[in-house]
Amino acid sequence: MAHRVETAFVFDLDGTLIDSVYQHVLAWQEALNDEGIELAVWRIHRKIGMSGGLFTNMLLRETGHDFDAQRIARMQQRHADIYRLNLAKVRPLPGARELLLALRDANIPFAIATSGRMQTAGPALEKLQFDFSSTPIVTRDHVKYAKPEPDLFLEAADRLHVGPMSVSVVGDSVWDMLAATRGRFLGVGVLSGGYGLEELERSGAYRVFEDPADVLRHLDELGGRR
Amino acid sequence: MAHRVETAFVFDLDGTLIDSVYQHVLAWQEALNDEGIELAVWRIHRKIGMSGGLFTNMLLRETGHDFDAQRIARMQQRHADIYRLNLAKVRPLPGARELLLALRDANIPFAIATSGRMQTAGPALEKLQFDFSSTPIVTRDHVKYAKPEPDLFLEAADRLHVGPMSVSVVGDSVWDMLAATRGRFLGVGVLSGGYGLEELERSGAYRVFEDPADVLRHLDELGGRR
Repeated sequence: MAHRVETAFVFDLDGTLIDSVYQHVLAWQEALNDEGIELAVWRIHRKIGMSGGLFTNMLLRETGHDFDAQRIARMQQRHADIYRLNLAKVRPLPGARELLLALRDANIPFAIATSGRMQTAGPALEKLQFDFSSTPIVTRDHVKYAKPEPDLFLEAADRLHVGPMSVSVVGDSVWDMLAATRGRFLGVGVLSGGYGLEELERSGAYRVFEDPADVLRHLDELGGRR
Repeated sequence: MAHRVETAFVFDLDGTLIDSVYQHVLAWQEALNDEGIELAVWRIHRKIGMSGGLFTNMLLRETGHDFDAQRIARMQQRHADIYRLNLAKVRPLPGARELLLALRDANIPFAIATSGRMQTAGPALEKLQFDFSSTPIVTRDHVKYAKPEPDLFLEAADRLHVGPMSVSVVGDSVWDMLAATRGRFLGVGVLSGGYGLEELERSGAYRVFEDPADVLRHLDELGGRR
């Protein structure tokens, strides 16, 4: 019998399953403003989802200010606090819950891997009203380097007991696609984080869909068939 | 002496001179939610800056709900109210004021043309701390059809006493570029509204810059030389 590539999925969270990117972006702008840093919102949007360390390097590059560890920790806490205030308005993306249910029903393994910390990822996951007790959830707390390093996705694949060759990484940002490519995963883009189609294609997306509902409609094209 | 094309500029406001797109987007989401309509934030972002009538058609198409005039007026008022609450956090985009000052100093005519109403455009203009007393300001209140119809830009050109051939339209959205093309203006895109480079190029942008500061740095490439 011929060798078959079985498919497993690793999902990013914000902008991929949860409609939370714009709230994160504005919370970052406010946290930066509180430190006297003015940065245009679109520049923050373009950097959301990358590791905190790289985000800080970006800030240094864009603003010319240097940031010590204490100041960074203070901004991160402030971002988390402001985001939590707006959490009530955050919704799951269309089809997100249905997609996870369909994968579970079809016995297709999947995990979640997010650059965020459990502190903010936990409440977001609750919004999906899904039983994640048998789902690997990998957050920034579990790895040394976040996206665009592939560590989050590699850790998720390890927990699923599969190799990168078997995994499609579904994400909304350029950092997801770059990290997928770095780890030799297939990157599947979704537009629901507010990035352009071509940005995702150019950063390595193998396919791009609108949102989780659109991924679900095309699941058979992604090897989601048993 | 050879015929020369003198350059004038027409600027969109939100996302082009003022960093207000993301606040508008989230205010729309909340106004829609209050009417029981759930729409993902990225879809609202992609429609921002188009005329209210087309925005409503889009809602009908995306949600399957029909909207009577009263309900639309209520949503628009609710959007304006929520946006006003967040206006204190809205900033001019980097270089916006400097760009307008440079044009004024060089005697290059310019106007503002926005799909918004004076109710929301007025407070945004104030943030630029610029004397607009001799600048044509064209809003949704002045024309029958807003973007992507070219009426706002045509009215602005009329008030500048120039034809479309002389005008570069600077805007952040696909609707600005489409309206510019429709009116035979040159469209110059800026990324500061959060759209992707390729989205703007594909909708007809002749050049794309990062933000007003970047436009100012390249003003000589746009005919901004006297």
